[in-house]
Amino acid sequence: MKPIKRLSACAGLALVPTIAAAQDAAPSFDEIGPYLMTTLLFLIGGFLVFWMAAGFAMLEAGLVRSKNVTTQLTKNIALFSIASIMYWLIGFNLMYPGDGWLVAGWIGPFFSWTELEPVGLAANDAALEYASVGSDFFFQLMFVAATASIVSGALAERIKLWPFLIFVIVLTGVMYPLSGSWKWGGGWLEAAGFNDFAGSTIVHSVGGWAALAGAIILGPRLGKYKNGQVIPMPGSNLTLATLGTFILWMGWFGFNGGSQLAAGTVGDITDISRIFANTNMAAAAGAVAALILTQIMFGKVDLTMVLNGALAGLVSITAEPLAPTLFGALWIGAIGGVIVVFAVPLLDRLRIDDVVGAIPVHLFAGIWGTIAVVFYNAEAKIGAQITGILAYGVFTFAASLVVWVVLKGAIGIRVSEEAEINGLDSSELGMDAYPEFSKG
Amino acid sequence: MKPIKRLSACAGLALVPTIAAAQDAAPSFDEIGPYLMTTLLFLIGGFLVFWMAAGFAMLEAGLVRSKNVTTQLTKNIALFSIASIMYWLIGFNLMYPGDGWLVAGWIGPFFSWTELEPVGLAANDAALEYASVGSDFFFQLMFVAATASIVSGALAERIKLWPFLIFVIVLTGVMYPLSGSWKWGGGWLEAAGFNDFAGSTIVHSVGGWAALAGAIILGPRLGKYKNGQVIPMPGSNLTLATLGTFILWMGWFGFNGGSQLAAGTVGDITDISRIFANTNMAAAAGAVAALILTQIMFGKVDLTMVLNGALAGLVSITAEPLAPTLFGALWIGAIGGVIVVFAVPLLDRLRIDDVVGAIPVHLFAGIWGTIAVVFYNAEAKIGAQITGILAYGVFTFAASLVVWVVLKGAIGIRVSEEAEINGLDSSELGMDAYPEFSKG
Amino acid sequence: MKPIKRLSACAGLALVPTIAAAQDAAPSFDEIGPYLMTTLLFLIGGFLVFWMAAGFAMLEAGLVRSKNVTTQLTKNIALFSIASIMYWLIGFNLMYPGDGWLVAGWIGPFFSWTELEPVGLAANDAALEYASVGSDFFFQLMFVAATASIVSGALAERIKLWPFLIFVIVLTGVMYPLSGSWKWGGGWLEAAGFNDFAGSTIVHSVGGWAALAGAIILGPRLGKYKNGQVIPMPGSNLTLATLGTFILWMGWFGFNGGSQLAAGTVGDITDISRIFANTNMAAAAGAVAALILTQIMFGKVDLTMVLNGALAGLVSITAEPLAPTLFGALWIGAIGGVIVVFAVPLLDRLRIDDVVGAIPVHLFAGIWGTIAVVFYNAEAKIGAQITGILAYGVFTFAASLVVWVVLKGAIGIRVSEEAEINGLDSSELGMDAYPEFSKG
Repeated sequence: MKPIKRLSACAGLALVPTIAAAQDAAPSFDEIGPYLMTTLLFLIGGFLVFWMAAGFAMLEAGLVRSKNVTTQLTKNIALFSIASIMYWLIGFNLMYPGDGWLVAGWIGPFFSWTELEPVGLAANDAALEYASVGSDFFFQLMFVAATASIVSGALAERIKLWPFLIFVIVLTGVMYPLSGSWKWGGGWLEAAGFNDFAGSTIVHSVGGWAALAGAIILGPRLGKYKNGQVIPMPGSNLTLATLGTFILWMGWFGFNGGSQLAAGTVGDITDISRIFANTNMAAAAGAVAALILTQIMFGKVDLTMVLNGALAGLVSITAEPLAPTLFGALWIGAIGGVIVVFAVPLLDRLRIDDVVGAIPVHLFAGIWGTIAVVFYNAEAKIGAQITGILAYGVFTFAASLVVWVVLKGAIGIRVSEEAEINGLDSSELGMDAYPEFSKG
Repeated sequence: MKPIKRLSACAGLALVPTIAAAQDAAPSFDEIGPYLMTTLLFLIGGFLVFWMAAGFAMLEAGLVRSKNVTTQLTKNIALFSIASIMYWLIGFNLMYPGDGWLVAGWIGPFFSWTELEPVGLAANDAALEYASVGSDFFFQLMFVAATASIVSGALAERIKLWPFLIFVIVLTGVMYPLSGSWKWGGGWLEAAGFNDFAGSTIVHSVGGWAALAGAIILGPRLGKYKNGQVIPMPGSNLTLATLGTFILWMGWFGFNGGSQLAAGTVGDITDISRIFANTNMAAAAGAVAALILTQIMFGKVDLTMVLNGALAGLVSITAEPLAPTLFGALWIGAIGGVIVVFAVPLLDRLRIDDVVGAIPVHLFAGIWGTIAVVFYNAEAKIGAQITGILAYGVFTFAASLVVWVVLKGAIGIRVSEEAEINGLDSSELGMDAYPEFSKG
Repeated sequence: MKPIKRLSACAGLALVPTIAAAQDAAPSFDEIGPYLMTTLLFLIGGFLVFWMAAGFAMLEAGLVRSKNVTTQLTKNIALFSIASIMYWLIGFNLMYPGDGWLVAGWIGPFFSWTELEPVGLAANDAALEYASVGSDFFFQLMFVAATASIVSGALAERIKLWPFLIFVIVLTGVMYPLSGSWKWGGGWLEAAGFNDFAGSTIVHSVGGWAALAGAIILGPRLGKYKNGQVIPMPGSNLTLATLGTFILWMGWFGFNGGSQLAAGTVGDITDISRIFANTNMAAAAGAVAALILTQIMFGKVDLTMVLNGALAGLVSITAEPLAPTLFGALWIGAIGGVIVVFAVPLLDRLRIDDVVGAIPVHLFAGIWGTIAVVFYNAEAKIGAQITGILAYGVFTFAASLVVWVVLKGAIGIRVSEEAEINGLDSSELGMDAYPEFSKG
């Protein structure tokens, strides 16, 4: 809804003199209340979205085979840490350039790291109409980490650790913030009327496109497709996968709710309530849709589909969690769940091996959610939505392809056959996740 | 403490003209502050109680045998999703009828689904003395999910998936909201002076009664009671059970704290602080009581008893987490822990097979907590408390019996002997939770 | 930053007449807003730090061998429960004596249990310049539990359950609050100019010193050091260890952020934003430092080092999470990660057996963080910092030694050799954490 996720600190400060002029004394609580509430929203939203990093880690650790669990865990904690550093070093100001565009509407400033407000900021120096820069930075950096987590799941069980981490550096430092600036930084897609409230496209599809490019370059796991058959490689721990899904669901309240970017008026906090309720409904509907559909299609409920159905419901509502009614959230989320049930086997038919179902969940449902904006948001136009979907798709897929191909040529991205068969935990890390439990 | 959990939106809006008349301009932050704070309370409380759904899932997955884990996880994510939809479709307005009672004080309106406030609600249109409808709905729906989770644990390892989910539809759409309206919707038990702050009876006993009815109709697991002996069937993963307990404990701060239903005055936020401190104390005391008692009685500490002791302490304080002193919370919670240690073997003597101890924790400690209200809340009368306990017990137990018997007759509720022996994961779902780990 | 963590309730109330005199009517929202915000900060911060108890439990359960998991879980839930009771009974008022010092600046009052404000506190009776006593108590008690958790991890796999719990009683009821009062209660170290914002020394080093004393008295696990060799005893479940690390990281936002002790002004909430961002950066930097360093030193990334690197980054920034820039947080945290990589083998060379790496993470990085305060906080003096480090070290190490030696002499602290070889779960509790999974 809000075109620009963050006013640049400078722009914000420019408004302050007006306020300060009106009163020599410090602003009253009445005047600072909205700033306090919105900052608090970012802090709470931020720790909830942080929690999604743990959710991705558990989901992925549960859906890979036990011989690859340590590697998957290592990737997850490393990618979050790298994202935190890269987004500080380059990403945040690249994504929210304010007046600092290198190429207006297209490319923000590189190598302008994030600086926080001084300790004990005076009220008269604050962007009272918004929130503290620190809270905004904290909130936004959690989003870039989510994008990287999506890639991690799809490419599991055969990618080398370090090439993956190098890709994360590029994705979180440059690719995601650069393309993100086109909309949330006030760039050309914002001008074009593209709508993506909390990032069905900007966050989830981008992760999905990067994953798709990687999955194609990397190829499927050994033995996954044999004689035209798809060989199931069941996840080693469905409890962890379920826990991860619950964690992601919980974190999504912060993801979508915090993206209201304001909590200091009746309208804003009531909107956040709508967003929480709709987000929950879409997840529930996605899960129930997958539950019923797998029962009908396969004669048995498939838990991993139900989990991915819930996640697809969440991704679907993320482009517009505010405007729909609860019934709207229900059917938008349910279609997300349906998409997953059909898309997972479709990808297998294309011999694209996505270990955890990240591409159906984040890319396909992300596209669906971005289109669905037009049903409830009167300002959204289908042309602009498709423009946005294509712009993020073309840019991210192409840029990712380039990075993956370069990495492949330069240092190789795939472990040896022997290492893949024995498991990445022994070849890459020499450390078993469950050393005492014998394998069946 | 608060008689009615939610003012009907209509009633709330009726007050607005008075406020609006006093001023043509939008209300100042001073006037909207309490609305913002209470709405925020519901949002935070809501995501914490949401988190309890993950807690129940982990607790139950840890306490069943590994051959039934996937089924238990599926039930938990499905029941939460179904509850979310049913509570929107029927439950919320049935439970909080405002002026819309079908039978005054007894039955609210059916098939009146929940509608949220419009996007960007104007302050003058808001129920400024309360909170946004969306936040209230979000918070309340998490409670009904908790009730359903309780049933899920008790009936584990032998109930079929779909009959269980049909029961959940009835429980969350009709039974829980209908009986809940008697007190929290301002019905006859509210008029009768019954006190149940956050739902020792209305939420926890109700879940316990539904579980008890189910456990009786369903019968014990094969081999659980043999030649007058109780055969232990230890849970497959105590780490998960412990994690689940910690999650539930954390979520309970939202459960009890949010039930203050107001956070915009010094009195309310200070009361919420009391509630947080008392809730923690009761859990700690329940755990310590079970720790000491199992050491004395069995010569060894029993971790599952300690976990259930903490949960029983939490259930015990839930009917009145505000009025007691910290010492009061300690002894009320400790008695909850003692109840569990004695009630678990008692149920076994009655050959009622409750897989996770849900009936001792939620029903027995729930009754105890509801009685204990009289010790610190001067307004509570023992007669009214017993009336409430009986009313919820008779209604929920009888209605549940009917539903279980009908389900049993119509489609059967129990898996075949062979399926039970092989595990529900292979018979019901064809998906193993831990496919790589060989069983001991 | 704030010298005294909690104004005594009495001192707080003494200020109220002034406010009350200025107005007969109840204070306006404008006047109570800061009280509401700071109380909310403690409640949110408190449940986040509560969550760390689950984090320690998962981390430790993941890093011990499976034969000791049930015992480790039992210790964790028991220690938290005992801490909750002891801190109410003795700790809180001993730590924050207000005017009630027994020996001014050194020893507070014993056996003065905590009493909360009355239900429905009137605004005129509240410490409006601070927060509710209940919220403050709730927040502070979570810190003492963290201290006890640190000890639990280091001494795993060979200590008896009950002697450990008796130590916890002394640590949480007396040792921690007594020494804590020296700084946070306004005692002699506060007067000496010692700085420790959220407790690198007061919480983490104290836990580390108590653990070190215990590890020395207890001796290493059987077979850990053989013929000058260090025998690796890998943790049984790295997924749990990773989950625990993510939980701790999340909880740390409450730990450090809540320690701002105020959230009702622009300066305070903006400072909290700085703290959140810095805390995250330090953790990320600690993880990346360990990632790179283990790759360089061992040729392979070591996940447990990365996890402990993140935790060490968090401990390092805890003494001063506000003043540093993001770049400052980066290098302070990174050095924490480096310390862990070098300190873990160092301890092994000294034949001090610390099962989870608690001493490197909490003691060594805690000392480092306390020294690092001087780089960004202009008020901090290296002399005062060292005085504080030594004071807490000498007192806690000596007092712990005494308690451990007395416990060893009186009832024994170590299980029998046979029990240790068979695992504490069978000898101490008779309950296996994973009964169905055969051991490799």
